[in-house]
Amino acid sequence: MANLISRRQFTIEWAHCDPAGIVFNSRFFEFFDWGTWLLFEAALGVKPPDLAGAFQILGIPLVDASARFLAPARFGDAVELASQVSAFRRSSFDVEHQLRVRGELAVDGRETRVWATRDAADPSLIKPQAIPEAVVARFQRADAR
Amino acid sequence: MANLISRRQFTIEWAHCDPAGIVFNSRFFEFFDWGTWLLFEAALGVKPPDLAGAFQILGIPLVDASARFLAPARFGDAVELASQVSAFRRSSFDVEHQLRVRGELAVDGRETRVWATRDAADPSLIKPQAIPEAVVARFQRADAR
Amino acid sequence: MANLISRRQFTIEWAHCDPAGIVFNSRFFEFFDWGTWLLFEAALGVKPPDLAGAFQILGIPLVDASARFLAPARFGDAVELASQVSAFRRSSFDVEHQLRVRGELAVDGRETRVWATRDAADPSLIKPQAIPEAVVARFQRADAR
Amino acid sequence: MANLISRRQFTIEWAHCDPAGIVFNSRFFEFFDWGTWLLFEAALGVKPPDLAGAFQILGIPLVDASARFLAPARFGDAVELASQVSAFRRSSFDVEHQLRVRGELAVDGRETRVWATRDAADPSLIKPQAIPEAVVARFQRADAR
Repeated sequence: MANLISRRQFTIEWAHCDPAGIVFNSRFFEFFDWGTWLLFEAALGVKPPDLAGAFQILGIPLVDASARFLAPARFGDAVELASQVSAFRRSSFDVEHQLRVRGELAVDGRETRVWATRDAADPSLIKPQAIPEAVVARFQRADAR
Repeated sequence: MANLISRRQFTIEWAHCDPAGIVFNSRFFEFFDWGTWLLFEAALGVKPPDLAGAFQILGIPLVDASARFLAPARFGDAVELASQVSAFRRSSFDVEHQLRVRGELAVDGRETRVWATRDAADPSLIKPQAIPEAVVARFQRADAR
Repeated sequence: MANLISRRQFTIEWAHCDPAGIVFNSRFFEFFDWGTWLLFEAALGVKPPDLAGAFQILGIPLVDASARFLAPARFGDAVELASQVSAFRRSSFDVEHQLRVRGELAVDGRETRVWATRDAADPSLIKPQAIPEAVVARFQRADAR
Repeated sequence: MANLISRRQFTIEWAHCDPAGIVFNSRFFEFFDWGTWLLFEAALGVKPPDLAGAFQILGIPLVDASARFLAPARFGDAVELASQVSAFRRSSFDVEHQLRVRGELAVDGRETRVWATRDAADPSLIKPQAIPEAVVARFQRADAR
């Protein structure tokens, strides 16, 4: 069984770049967020703004993020972001994001997110909830099921 | 009577700048937003997140924004943003923002915002509401009243 | 003769939106910048990072920007940005940007930019230069020439 | 001997926040960048844009960044960012960033950066260089030396 991978091609914009002429690091974390939503839409068939409602959750808040910057991405570069869930745990999961510039791995990132609901007793609190097995199953590639 | 002017000094960060080594234009509109909230807090004595609740409004959404870029602001520049309401109308108002670099006017901006509530009949609609006179009066300088 | 119009379809991302759940205003100015580069690539057949070199200019710095916000754009909205040069002057030009959400005009923007070189006597100074007629001609639609 | 810690107090702006009403994660990496420049200015007495020139380096590019998000930061929150170099190696170093909201640790971040120069043989290449001992010494607190 192989993970479902969602891929997005886009071009590095002037606005993404810093005085060194390369993408400023925080932008990659923004790209990772794009990638996660796209992956969830591909896997679950639900538009991102409808995700919470469809699964009676609050959302999939981020609790940890990291990136290694291996090579620069520059203004005008055509890049590809590949995103997949690399691990599901009971109520949290890791999303791996690899950004390639001309086929070369430039940024290797990871987000850890939580499948979260509001606490029934105190709705101001957010609490992790078990990820349904049916959700997990959708992150396997159709051709590999 | 003179307008209340709120002033904020800050430093241009690396992350604000583009490959030309100067502040990317969209950042100035972000600075203007900072300036408007600071001005409203100074005038009304209400923390920004409490503004809507304190005045039973939805907020002060932006309907028009513009800026003239007269001189660049660079990484490390100490700048001052001066913000004032230049015109109050029945339910909208203009905020002028002037950003100076070493005393020189670098960016001259203006936002038009609306004093907005939800429509009573259809809460999904936002509608302009008359700005209370007591609110308008607070945007005059105390020493000029 | 009709203006060349470049169009870009994209989706509003979570990261573009503010606590009101709609695109934060400064992001639209970032989108306008995307639109201008895309238009110049379509018209001149030169990749954005190669534009300055291809025409022996410093770039096309922004001197004025404005936008009217007519309707909100929300997380997940599919939008289209249409960009065209609405006026060429001797050494400056206006780019009009219209962002539509489901066919409805949501943001109407305009940038004024300068065709700029470095001053020969003092390279620290930027100065406007006459826009070549051959450049202007490329911003007319091929089918309309 | 204790590390020099630079601290910066600031307020969470509307523009920093996402539709959940909390700071969007990429902004924290922008704050970390602010923190590193501030720390280097405090330690070395050199304005950020003058750092490269003062030490004959290209800069201090980021090769790795990570953050744990422990508690949300909301619009209007007064926060404090504390930054320190937690480890110096031969030619790289780690900067730890802790962001507190009302005294509570909300985000715990780390950047790994390189003390970098251009390769003498091929100036298009960036290469790590040994960090001068005199530089390292400046990141100890004056009262602890």
